[in-house]
Amino acid sequence: MPLNHTANGVYAIATTPFLDDFSVDTKSVDRLTDFYAEAGATGITILGIMGEAPKLEYEESLGIVRQVVGRSKLPIIVGVSAPGFAAMRRLARESMDLGAAGVMIAPPSNLRTDDQIRGYYASAVEAIGEDIPFVIQDYPLTLTVVMTPAVIRDIVNAHLSCVMLKHEDWPGLEKISALRKFQGEGSMREISILCGNGGLFLDFECERGADGAMTGYAFTDALADIVRLQAAGNRDAAHDMFDAHLPLIRYEQQQGVGLAVRKYVLKKRGLITSDLQRKPAGALTAKAREEVDYLLSRVARHDPRAVI
Amino acid sequence: MPLNHTANGVYAIATTPFLDDFSVDTKSVDRLTDFYAEAGATGITILGIMGEAPKLEYEESLGIVRQVVGRSKLPIIVGVSAPGFAAMRRLARESMDLGAAGVMIAPPSNLRTDDQIRGYYASAVEAIGEDIPFVIQDYPLTLTVVMTPAVIRDIVNAHLSCVMLKHEDWPGLEKISALRKFQGEGSMREISILCGNGGLFLDFECERGADGAMTGYAFTDALADIVRLQAAGNRDAAHDMFDAHLPLIRYEQQQGVGLAVRKYVLKKRGLITSDLQRKPAGALTAKAREEVDYLLSRVARHDPRAVI
Amino acid sequence: MPLNHTANGVYAIATTPFLDDFSVDTKSVDRLTDFYAEAGATGITILGIMGEAPKLEYEESLGIVRQVVGRSKLPIIVGVSAPGFAAMRRLARESMDLGAAGVMIAPPSNLRTDDQIRGYYASAVEAIGEDIPFVIQDYPLTLTVVMTPAVIRDIVNAHLSCVMLKHEDWPGLEKISALRKFQGEGSMREISILCGNGGLFLDFECERGADGAMTGYAFTDALADIVRLQAAGNRDAAHDMFDAHLPLIRYEQQQGVGLAVRKYVLKKRGLITSDLQRKPAGALTAKAREEVDYLLSRVARHDPRAVI
Amino acid sequence: MPLNHTANGVYAIATTPFLDDFSVDTKSVDRLTDFYAEAGATGITILGIMGEAPKLEYEESLGIVRQVVGRSKLPIIVGVSAPGFAAMRRLARESMDLGAAGVMIAPPSNLRTDDQIRGYYASAVEAIGEDIPFVIQDYPLTLTVVMTPAVIRDIVNAHLSCVMLKHEDWPGLEKISALRKFQGEGSMREISILCGNGGLFLDFECERGADGAMTGYAFTDALADIVRLQAAGNRDAAHDMFDAHLPLIRYEQQQGVGLAVRKYVLKKRGLITSDLQRKPAGALTAKAREEVDYLLSRVARHDPRAVI
Repeated sequence: MPLNHTANGVYAIATTPFLDDFSVDTKSVDRLTDFYAEAGATGITILGIMGEAPKLEYEESLGIVRQVVGRSKLPIIVGVSAPGFAAMRRLARESMDLGAAGVMIAPPSNLRTDDQIRGYYASAVEAIGEDIPFVIQDYPLTLTVVMTPAVIRDIVNAHLSCVMLKHEDWPGLEKISALRKFQGEGSMREISILCGNGGLFLDFECERGADGAMTGYAFTDALADIVRLQAAGNRDAAHDMFDAHLPLIRYEQQQGVGLAVRKYVLKKRGLITSDLQRKPAGALTAKAREEVDYLLSRVARHDPRAVI
Repeated sequence: MPLNHTANGVYAIATTPFLDDFSVDTKSVDRLTDFYAEAGATGITILGIMGEAPKLEYEESLGIVRQVVGRSKLPIIVGVSAPGFAAMRRLARESMDLGAAGVMIAPPSNLRTDDQIRGYYASAVEAIGEDIPFVIQDYPLTLTVVMTPAVIRDIVNAHLSCVMLKHEDWPGLEKISALRKFQGEGSMREISILCGNGGLFLDFECERGADGAMTGYAFTDALADIVRLQAAGNRDAAHDMFDAHLPLIRYEQQQGVGLAVRKYVLKKRGLITSDLQRKPAGALTAKAREEVDYLLSRVARHDPRAVI
Repeated sequence: MPLNHTANGVYAIATTPFLDDFSVDTKSVDRLTDFYAEAGATGITILGIMGEAPKLEYEESLGIVRQVVGRSKLPIIVGVSAPGFAAMRRLARESMDLGAAGVMIAPPSNLRTDDQIRGYYASAVEAIGEDIPFVIQDYPLTLTVVMTPAVIRDIVNAHLSCVMLKHEDWPGLEKISALRKFQGEGSMREISILCGNGGLFLDFECERGADGAMTGYAFTDALADIVRLQAAGNRDAAHDMFDAHLPLIRYEQQQGVGLAVRKYVLKKRGLITSDLQRKPAGALTAKAREEVDYLLSRVARHDPRAVI
Repeated sequence: MPLNHTANGVYAIATTPFLDDFSVDTKSVDRLTDFYAEAGATGITILGIMGEAPKLEYEESLGIVRQVVGRSKLPIIVGVSAPGFAAMRRLARESMDLGAAGVMIAPPSNLRTDDQIRGYYASAVEAIGEDIPFVIQDYPLTLTVVMTPAVIRDIVNAHLSCVMLKHEDWPGLEKISALRKFQGEGSMREISILCGNGGLFLDFECERGADGAMTGYAFTDALADIVRLQAAGNRDAAHDMFDAHLPLIRYEQQQGVGLAVRKYVLKKRGLITSDLQRKPAGALTAKAREEVDYLLSRVARHDPRAVI
C-alpha cells in the first residue's frame, strides 16, 4: 500500500549491517527487519544517511530494498537522494516496482533560496514521476539547507505526491506548530510529520503535533513507547520514558560518531553481528565504549530492555 | 591575578541583561554577578556570544567590564573577538587595565586550513600583546572553524600567553583525551580546559580530563555541583545531578532560541528583571514557555533549586 | 543632498591608505578623494569591505567619514555593516550628521532563507531610522547570502529609504534584467543599480540596465569612460576600453589578494603613499608585482593612463 | 599508457552532449573526441563536473568511457569522484580495464582540516588500489575544500600513484610557485600541474610553472596555442592570444551558467548537435545568447576560428 499522509508511529531508520569483509550482512538485515516490527515500529526507512546509502553500489542498494520489502509487512520508505536525477529516478521506480511504499528525498547542500528549494523538488517530482509518494527530508544541520514552513507548504501544495515530512530541523518545535497551523487554517494539505534528529526532542515534538518519529536510535522499542504514551495523553509517563533514555539519545546524536554508537548498541542487543561501517567511518575508542556501557547500565535502572 | 593554566571549576558565561528600553540593566548585572559567586562559580566570562557582545557599542562593552570587574572577586575573562585586530587590541588592553584576568578569542568563520588558524592566533597575540593571558574558543558548530588537537597544540606551544581552551567542539570527548595525552607525553604545555556547549556533555567531559565548565546554563549551581562531584570521584552522584538537568540543558542548547530560554529561566529565578534581547533575537512562544515551565517542574523533583 | 534612485555613473569604492606605522594616512585620503572626482567618479563609497572597514576602530572610521565628506563635493556613501544594530545605528546616524549622502548595508553571512533576509533589512531600517537612504549590498561570493530578484523587490517595496542596489552577484546579468523588468511592469519602485565585482562584467551590465559601477578598480577613470560610452550608445568603443583593461581587472579581482593588487597600482599611480594593509592582509610577491607591471605595460598600449 | 608526471599541454575537459530526449548523443561524443585531438589537445578528461557526471547513471558513465577510450589515441582521464568509495573503486577499476590512463578525484565538500584531506586521499587510494594513477582536483570555489601547498605535498609524497594536480584554486598563482619550489628543493616528488578555472589565469599559470591546462573552454585550440607559445618562450604572443579570448573565457567562467555558454559555443562550432543539459541546468536567455554572439564576433577579429 502506498504511503500516505495518515502515517504515524515510529518509522525506524534502518542501519545497514556489514560483515567483516565489508559486504552487506544479509542475515543481520533480516534480524533487524524483524526486530523493528517486534519493537513496535509502524514502518521502516532504508538507505538513509545513517544507512550508509552513499557508500553502497547501486546493485547493493537495490538488493537491500528487495530483501527488506520481501521480508517485512511494514511499509518501507527508500531514501533515493542522489547527486543527479537519473540515478534518483531509477532507484525510485525500481524500488516501487519491488513493493516499496514511498521514497525520501533530501535537498542537495548547495540550495540556498526559497525558489531553489521549491524548484529542486519540482524537478525531482518530474524525474521520479507524480505517482510515487515522497517524503521531504528537512535536516539543515547536516544538509545546510534551510526550509521555512512556508516553503514546505509550497512544496506540499504543489505536489500531491508529497505525503510526509521527515522533520529534523534544529530547533524545530515551532516549525511543527507552524505547519499544523497551516493545516488548521486550511492553507496546506494534511501531511504526516515524523521527527528525526535521533529523537532528541521527541518528548515535545509529539505534543506539538508530530505524528511520531522517524529515526534510528537503537531503542526503537522505547521510541514506540514514547509515541504511544503521548498519543494516549499520558504526558508524564512519556517524559519519564524519554528522560530515562535521554542521556544515551544525546550521546548517540553526536555528529560523525553517532552511527558508531548506534551500531555498537545494536550489536550488544544482538541485532547485528558486527558494528563495522564502511569508510569513511567514525569509530569508538575503548573509553567511548565504556561510556556507552555505563549509560546503558543507567538506562537499565528504568528500562529493562537496556539490560545487556 | 592573571588567568593561568590552573583555572578550574565553573566559569559562568554571563548573560547581558537589558531593560525594556534595551539599555543595559546595570542592577541586574550586579545581581547576576553576585549570583554566580554564590552559585559556586570560580570565574565569570563576559561579552561572549551568549552575552550578546556583538550587539553592544564599545562604551557599553567597556562599561560592563568595569562594572563586573569592580563588583566581583572572581577572575573575569572578557570576550574580545572582533572583525579586526584594532578593535580586539583596544578592548583587550583596556579590559586588562580595568582588572580583567584574561581574554577569550574566537576564530573568524572564514578560516579553513590549519595554517590559517595558526596564523590567525599569531596575529591576534601580536595585536593584543604577549602579556595578556588568552583563551582559545573552539566552537565549530557556530563558528564553522574546525581545529584539530594538533593545531590547538601548535597554538599553545607557540604562545605562552595561551592558558586555556574553551572546548565546545561537537563531538568533543576524544579531543579532550587527545589534548591531555599530548600533555602527558610532554608534547604540549599544560592548559586549562573548560567546556561549553551549554553543558550537554559535561558529565563525561570531566571524566575525560576537563577542568570544568565554561557555559551559561541557567543553573550555574548545578553545573558547579556536577564538576565538584566529579572532582571528588563521585561518578554516579555527578551523573544523577546531570541527568536531572539534562532535559532542560538540552532544551536550552537549541541554536538561536537557546538564549531566550536561558534568560527566561534566569528571570524566573529572580536574577534578571527582563528577558529581553537586543535584535536579532530568538523569542519564546507561549507554548515554549509552558514547555520550559514543565521542564522546570520535572527538574524540581530532583533539585529544589528548580522550584520557582 | 541625500542619495536617491537617480544615482548613476561610477561610485568609487575608496581604499583606506595607511602609513608605515599602520595609522590612517590622511594625506593620501585627501589625494585619493580628489583623484576620484578628477577621474570622473560621480560618488564615493567609503568604509566598504575593500576599504578595510572591519580593521578600523570606531573613531578612525568616523574620522574618515568626516575627512572625505568635508573634502569632496561628491555624494558619499558610508558602509555601516556591523555585527550588531547598535553599532550600525551609531555609525549611520553620525555619518549622516556629518553630511554623508547615504549608507550601505551588507547582510550577515548566516542568513539563509528569504524571510531571514527580508527580516534582517527590516530590523536594520528600524535600527538606523527610516530617514536614511540605504544601499543593499548583494555580494554572495564573499557574504554567502543569496538574494533572489524577488527578495530584493520585497525589500525595495517595503522600505522607501532603499534607493540603490550594489549589485555583485555572480553570475548576475540576468538579475539586472529581472529587476529592470520588475520596474517596467510596475511591480517594483525604481532604484539605482550600480555594479561591483571589480568591474568584471561592467561591459554587459550597463547594457542590461545598470546605472553604472560601484567598485574600486584602480582605474576609476577607465570605468567612468566605459559607463559614459555605454550611456552614449557607443557599444564597440565601450567594449574596446573594457577589453583593454580586462586582463588587469581580472587580476585585481582575485579574492584575498585583490586589494594588494589595487593598492600596489594606486601607489604606482602616485595616489597613495604606501600599499600597506592592516592585518589580516594578502601580500604581493616580487613575481606578482612583476606580473602587474607587465599587465600595466600591456594596458598602456591602449590607455595612456596606464603608462606609469 | 598510464598517466604520469610528465603530462603536459592541454587536457580537454569533455562536455557530455545529449540528444533532445536527454539520452547521451554518441555521435557528438565521437565528433568532440576527434575535435579535441585536431585542436591540439594532448589528453581528454571525461566525467568531470562540467561533463555532468553526477547526472549520469553508472552504465551511461561506463559507456562514455568505453566510447572515448576506444575512439581516441590520446590519454583519457576519468573523473571518479563519488559520494562513497565503493562506487569510486568500481568506476576507477572498470575504466582502467577499458584503457583509461588515470582517474581524477575531487574531495567531498565536508572536509575541513588538513588531516581530513590527507585522510580522505589515503582512503581513496586504498579503495581504488595503488596501481591506478590519479589526479587531485583542487577546486575550492566549487568544492569548498581548501588545500594548502603543504597538504598537496603530503598527498603526493604519501602516494606514488598521485601524478598530477588539476589546479583550480583561486587565487592560485602563488600555489603553483610554492609547489614548484617544493620540487626544486627536493621536498616533493615531481608532478604534472594542469590548470582549470576555465583558463581564466592560464596566461600567467604557464609562467609560474604549470605544465598546461585542463579545462573545457570551447576553444581548445586557442588554449593549445597559448600553452605552446608560452612553452616556446613567446610571452607577448601568448598573452595576445589569451587577451583576445579573455572576454569570452570570463563570460564562460560564470558559475552555474558557464556550461550553457560552453555548450552553446560548441554547438555553434558544429561540434555537438544540441546544447541541452540534463537537469538541474543553467540556461541562456536570448539576451545572453546575443552577448555570446557579440563576444564571438569580437574574438573573431583576432582569431579566425571564432568566425562562426
